[in-house]
Amino acid sequence: MKKQTRRKFIASTIALAIGVVASAKSLLTMETKNKKQLAHHVFFWLKNPDSKDDLNKLLTGLRTLEKIETIRSLHIGVPAATETRPVVDASYSASELMFFDDLEGEKIYQDHPLHKKFIQDCSPLWEKVVVYNSMGI
Amino acid sequence: MKKQTRRKFIASTIALAIGVVASAKSLLTMETKNKKQLAHHVFFWLKNPDSKDDLNKLLTGLRTLEKIETIRSLHIGVPAATETRPVVDASYSASELMFFDDLEGEKIYQDHPLHKKFIQDCSPLWEKVVVYNSMGI
Repeated sequence: MKKQTRRKFIASTIALAIGVVASAKSLLTMETKNKKQLAHHVFFWLKNPDSKDDLNKLLTGLRTLEKIETIRSLHIGVPAATETRPVVDASYSASELMFFDDLEGEKIYQDHPLHKKFIQDCSPLWEKVVVYNSMGI
Repeated sequence: MKKQTRRKFIASTIALAIGVVASAKSLLTMETKNKKQLAHHVFFWLKNPDSKDDLNKLLTGLRTLEKIETIRSLHIGVPAATETRPVVDASYSASELMFFDDLEGEKIYQDHPLHKKFIQDCSPLWEKVVVYNSMGI
């Protein structure tokens, strides 16, 4: 390769590398900024809201769900220390938020042995559950 | 560049590109599978739940929020056509789910002019709002 040709080749290679990084970034942005997935959000109110043991048992149970293959993303949480406002409900003990690609993914999750085992093991701990299923548009 | 040197250079470039893609994929997995972020989920009940116009106005308003820089991910949804179960609340009209890195990100969002404009423009449309702020653990 002549010096000039080599320079051009290096320039194209750098341009290609920048292109690859840009595509990967755009994929990441697409994935996280414009989800058209099904968001399944569950809020749990414990029978003994002051029991750290019961909360830990519930959180441990929730962690077992992440092996279910149709779950694309899992967020397990507790009420955040945000400003108190009348519209904010911070009375629950823990929450589970997961994303599925479609209705079928959610159905497979519902019927999955790991989900059934979680309900069997942990349902004696809670007195109320509220579920929201939101389809991204 | 000699032929052999050029080959080595091309091979290294390909290896580098594969490395970049692999890192981006691992970042993507980390981002979506192990969120320790603050999930801010808002449910809106319209005054006129049968009005497609009102729903569209609300959804258009919600889309203006995605420019707020502390929002890491935004999911706008409507009740999904999942199985009807007593624990599932599908009575709301639309939902907004966003992730922040921390409490400060959520505070910046609350005080942001785009958020204030959204409330001013769209709050006459809704009769009830419920907000859940869950901190990932």
